[in-house]
Amino acid sequence: MNLTETKKSREHLVDGVLLKVYRDTVLLPDGGESVREWIDHPGAAAVVPLFADGTTLLVRQFRYPPQREFLEVPAGKFDKEGEDPAELARRELEEEVGYTAATLTRVGETYPCIGYSNEVIHLFLAEDLSEQSAETDDAEFVVPVRMPLAEAVQRARAGEILDAKSTVALLLVQAFLDRREA
Amino acid sequence: MNLTETKKSREHLVDGVLLKVYRDTVLLPDGGESVREWIDHPGAAAVVPLFADGTTLLVRQFRYPPQREFLEVPAGKFDKEGEDPAELARRELEEEVGYTAATLTRVGETYPCIGYSNEVIHLFLAEDLSEQSAETDDAEFVVPVRMPLAEAVQRARAGEILDAKSTVALLLVQAFLDRREA
Repeated sequence: MNLTETKKSREHLVDGVLLKVYRDTVLLPDGGESVREWIDHPGAAAVVPLFADGTTLLVRQFRYPPQREFLEVPAGKFDKEGEDPAELARRELEEEVGYTAATLTRVGETYPCIGYSNEVIHLFLAEDLSEQSAETDDAEFVVPVRMPLAEAVQRARAGEILDAKSTVALLLVQAFLDRREA
Repeated sequence: MNLTETKKSREHLVDGVLLKVYRDTVLLPDGGESVREWIDHPGAAAVVPLFADGTTLLVRQFRYPPQREFLEVPAGKFDKEGEDPAELARRELEEEVGYTAATLTRVGETYPCIGYSNEVIHLFLAEDLSEQSAETDDAEFVVPVRMPLAEAVQRARAGEILDAKSTVALLLVQAFLDRREA
């Protein structure tokens, strides 16, 4: 069954500092027409660091749109098209929490907002970590929170990690570790 | 440590059919200023149906922004403010896949896009299901996919469910069932 919607016309609504917003008129599979308003997003990477002692490092951040703090895995978006997701994950790990990873493993990808954004987030596990610098780029507005990975996964499973990318990243990393240890 | 950003001024960029987009100038915790562009979203509910035989019902849909099909749990957004999340979950279950649930259990909530949207998705498990109608509102563009819940959860853990809300909903439902059975 063909479900594809095809573009008939496009209006560029916002060319913002952060957001590019479009309004497309689309042709539906049954020949009808509809409107799709959507965000063109460069994509992102999120990374779960795993230290030799079994702990991970999350970050607490205030997020303006929902007006609250979240406990998140380190993450960031692409600056430019065509950048390697693994390179982005390494950069975010270094800039956000100050560690470099000798081993980086891709555990999947997730689309957070398929109804109105094309954003895809590449998910990684980072191991064999070395402290790079005490001072990080975001140091003033990001609070690092160290805890056993098992505790972070337990919080995710209990619904206590409210940021979707972080929940998905933690649970996919745990599933990967379960398979590796099996 | 105070991480809160406060609004200094607001510009309404888009008042669209689907998207409300704002650009706020904000005061940072250190006294500096920055710009936040964000989507004002009404919120949503997603629901994992669980039948007596252990199967669930997902839906396959084409999503225009990422230009591909996704396997998703039934979900939808609020029409109006102040609506009860459980009522929304019941309505989406009926309209999207044609079932009513005698038992609905909240398993959590997730914020899919905290960087640029205030959307929150309320997550439910639906049980004691009755078929309501063969014809659903979205029948033409939504393909129902029935499978054992265990298989859907396994796919989520393997990174094969690419829609974040669906991954989170399936894994939180499984965690809830594990706790209930323990």
